[in-house]
Amino acid sequence: MEQAVGRQSTAVAAGGAPALPAPVSGDLYAEVMTFYAWQMRRVDALDIEGFADTFTDDGEVVHADGHRQHGKAEMLAGMRAALPRYRDIAVRHWFGHVLIEPCEGDPGTLRVSYYSLVTLTDREGKVTFQPTFTVDDVLVRRGGRLLTRSRLIRRDTPVEPAA
Amino acid sequence: MEQAVGRQSTAVAAGGAPALPAPVSGDLYAEVMTFYAWQMRRVDALDIEGFADTFTDDGEVVHADGHRQHGKAEMLAGMRAALPRYRDIAVRHWFGHVLIEPCEGDPGTLRVSYYSLVTLTDREGKVTFQPTFTVDDVLVRRGGRLLTRSRLIRRDTPVEPAA
Amino acid sequence: MEQAVGRQSTAVAAGGAPALPAPVSGDLYAEVMTFYAWQMRRVDALDIEGFADTFTDDGEVVHADGHRQHGKAEMLAGMRAALPRYRDIAVRHWFGHVLIEPCEGDPGTLRVSYYSLVTLTDREGKVTFQPTFTVDDVLVRRGGRLLTRSRLIRRDTPVEPAA
Repeated sequence: MEQAVGRQSTAVAAGGAPALPAPVSGDLYAEVMTFYAWQMRRVDALDIEGFADTFTDDGEVVHADGHRQHGKAEMLAGMRAALPRYRDIAVRHWFGHVLIEPCEGDPGTLRVSYYSLVTLTDREGKVTFQPTFTVDDVLVRRGGRLLTRSRLIRRDTPVEPAA
Repeated sequence: MEQAVGRQSTAVAAGGAPALPAPVSGDLYAEVMTFYAWQMRRVDALDIEGFADTFTDDGEVVHADGHRQHGKAEMLAGMRAALPRYRDIAVRHWFGHVLIEPCEGDPGTLRVSYYSLVTLTDREGKVTFQPTFTVDDVLVRRGGRLLTRSRLIRRDTPVEPAA
Repeated sequence: MEQAVGRQSTAVAAGGAPALPAPVSGDLYAEVMTFYAWQMRRVDALDIEGFADTFTDDGEVVHADGHRQHGKAEMLAGMRAALPRYRDIAVRHWFGHVLIEPCEGDPGTLRVSYYSLVTLTDREGKVTFQPTFTVDDVLVRRGGRLLTRSRLIRRDTPVEPAA
């Protein structure tokens, strides 16, 4: 996916000499983790409106298949269309290795990347897994609270190790 | 489970307009995560006494099947009865999306909810999974340290999306 | 593994009366989580050089099979030899229950232990799992940034509950 390259966090950019990002404050870390804990509860509860409200009005999501949703109307329509897929399963999104980087010169804008594992639990309690994903978000602060302005979801695929 | 409704965190309450909870400080976030890291090591080590010591004396656990254990004696007896189940497997509890809310007017009491995934690794290294759960805890501070006063475990089940 | 006993964190040491470790500051918690988010991105990207650079020059890894790698040259050679194993899969390391303990009298040295779950996603998106592991690290601060000085990886095995 070409668009991934330009948008992914500088910290995880391949090539050149990627460097350990500066650590963020504990308060910011807790705030971002709380934001995602809340946002993922909304999507896992199939609370489409509540989930959409965690995005800016011009929020954008690029799905792993390259499909792009722009703005709340498109987002809501896309989520409604996907609902039948979750009729008989409980979906849970698990995050790992959240990496937060305030934008230089604009500390109210955060680049955040994380691993995502999605479990599907059926009525009998059997758990299956979607492929793993890596996600790059841009969060912004509006009226004191965080919102997602953009999300780029990439399915994890095998890499060719450097020679 | 009827009791779940009344006890679950306000932040995840369905109906009305649930709102993003205020973020907690980084120090409190780290303290709660450290508490669970410790508590889960005790249960995963089958250290029944050590695990029970992370609860208040009147601590209560409501299991996903509705069974309620009240006080340390009941808790210890229940855990001892469950031990044979873990004879040949290594159990690990994984948490996700921990959401912490200090009680209004009583900052020493915390409502905490989190996702829980339980892995079972057998002697050959094969991993299987229990159904996913969502847990609502009430933590209190006693003599400077956190303890669990109540725990409500709910198995994740499919939800009916809003119409 | 005999060496595990001597090296594991005091907080998780069996026997005696293990106690809840003192919570660390939110800032330190965020810094350690950021370090691992970065380090695991390097290993999961098969960026061998970048991964090795997250260790001290005399860094040491003791693998679950008891094999010990000491110093960067051994580490790089070992990782290169393991690369063919990841030719057609995307590997992701997930951490749980990170427990951080600054060394008494030497706050720049941290004992960190955590659960580790490794997912392998193949080209079709099918996810399989390695056995679960528990890891004990020693991190040190060099020139303002954290590095891993030692890592002890233990495969989770069933425990015998106390009588």
